[in-house]
Amino acid sequence: MSGSATRACVILIGNELLSGRTQDKNLAWLAGKLNNAGVRLREARVIPDTEEAIVTTVRECRSKFDYVFTTGGIGPTHDDITAVNIAKAFGVKLARHPEAERLLRAHYTPDQLNEARLKMADIPEGARLIFNPVSAAPGFIIGNVYVMAGVPVIMQAMFDSIRHTIAGGAMMLSRSLTVGVAEGAIAKMLGELQAKYPGVEIGSYPYFRQGELGTSLVLRCTEEKILLEATAELRNRLFAITGNIVEDK
Amino acid sequence: MSGSATRACVILIGNELLSGRTQDKNLAWLAGKLNNAGVRLREARVIPDTEEAIVTTVRECRSKFDYVFTTGGIGPTHDDITAVNIAKAFGVKLARHPEAERLLRAHYTPDQLNEARLKMADIPEGARLIFNPVSAAPGFIIGNVYVMAGVPVIMQAMFDSIRHTIAGGAMMLSRSLTVGVAEGAIAKMLGELQAKYPGVEIGSYPYFRQGELGTSLVLRCTEEKILLEATAELRNRLFAITGNIVEDK
Repeated sequence: MSGSATRACVILIGNELLSGRTQDKNLAWLAGKLNNAGVRLREARVIPDTEEAIVTTVRECRSKFDYVFTTGGIGPTHDDITAVNIAKAFGVKLARHPEAERLLRAHYTPDQLNEARLKMADIPEGARLIFNPVSAAPGFIIGNVYVMAGVPVIMQAMFDSIRHTIAGGAMMLSRSLTVGVAEGAIAKMLGELQAKYPGVEIGSYPYFRQGELGTSLVLRCTEEKILLEATAELRNRLFAITGNIVEDK
Repeated sequence: MSGSATRACVILIGNELLSGRTQDKNLAWLAGKLNNAGVRLREARVIPDTEEAIVTTVRECRSKFDYVFTTGGIGPTHDDITAVNIAKAFGVKLARHPEAERLLRAHYTPDQLNEARLKMADIPEGARLIFNPVSAAPGFIIGNVYVMAGVPVIMQAMFDSIRHTIAGGAMMLSRSLTVGVAEGAIAKMLGELQAKYPGVEIGSYPYFRQGELGTSLVLRCTEEKILLEATAELRNRLFAITGNIVEDK
């Protein structure tokens, strides 16, 4: 369904995501934005703030995917070790970036700009900066790896500033239908419909809502004509089997 | 810090998590529960409903970690392909499991129990069942891989029913302090404290809340005495630098 599509991977870096302290919100946001950019997010990894995890994961993912986006670990404290380990993953040095330093000097007063904060201007050699309108300390792009902050509001501003540099393919379009029956009652029909429309990805998601059992069906395809045809057929078949109202949702 | 600790990986399986349609809630919940069981969650992966992704990821993770927990893809529809591909990852056959079939026959009326729903009784050979009190169709355990549903309420019930089978080590304890200054202002001190307490994992998390800038500090350690000592010292040092109130949180 997406053989020649542009493929991406997201790497969420941070112990707090693996301890249960923090509920990640970056993955779903990035997934939606990448989809709109015509890029298929094919995998995500959540890894701790350790050299081994960052170096190994970045090396593997940058060779497997067209684009890699990382979040987290680029702040001023001792547990922010993403930049130095991205440099290791690429076999380059970390060096103070003049433009990054200038941005920090413009943002902080001289007595605020201590050595810990200046560390945020240390960027892998050869990387280009990603603008941070929220708190100045930039992200960066090296090869096909985009390194961004973990705080959602900063990550989102960073992504929006580099969105135009991403060369995606056809945008994935989608339609959703909801029907008040369990998915097991319509599973056979769904399998037949999937076989009839191999270019449409048909997903079935059961839900329990206020004691009500139902199924959300999501159809995804890059070609609008085929998508609408499959959706219309699904709607008719659902009504024929269940006699229930089929809602667009 | 966790050299000989019991290590786990979570694999979240589902296209809906990679399209941005669904905000995952299983990872943070499992992370907290595993922590309480004395298990360190060291990685999570989010992968699509494809044979290649499931087989490759399960093979790699089951050899790298003591425990692997998967969520998603064990329902009755065509896009539920987790069980068959877990079987492939282990090089065993998928076969109808008599006890699983009995559970489904007890849950559904004969006319409800169609072939699609019976498919949920097809389990990799040699696997043990995980009880599902919500909707009958069981999960299963094969080797060190625990295969659970994706719907949070079902996944949670499944985990609670197998919790006692997990042999964890010492529980990771934690304390949190919050202070109303940016982390850059306390970064040097934090680095020194981390060097002084190598057995305590000190995490620093900036926040912006209603226009207020602040930092949450999380200390984690399996030994309570050391944890409390490090927390007390951090509290004193924070107050000395900032003069701000340090809140327990």
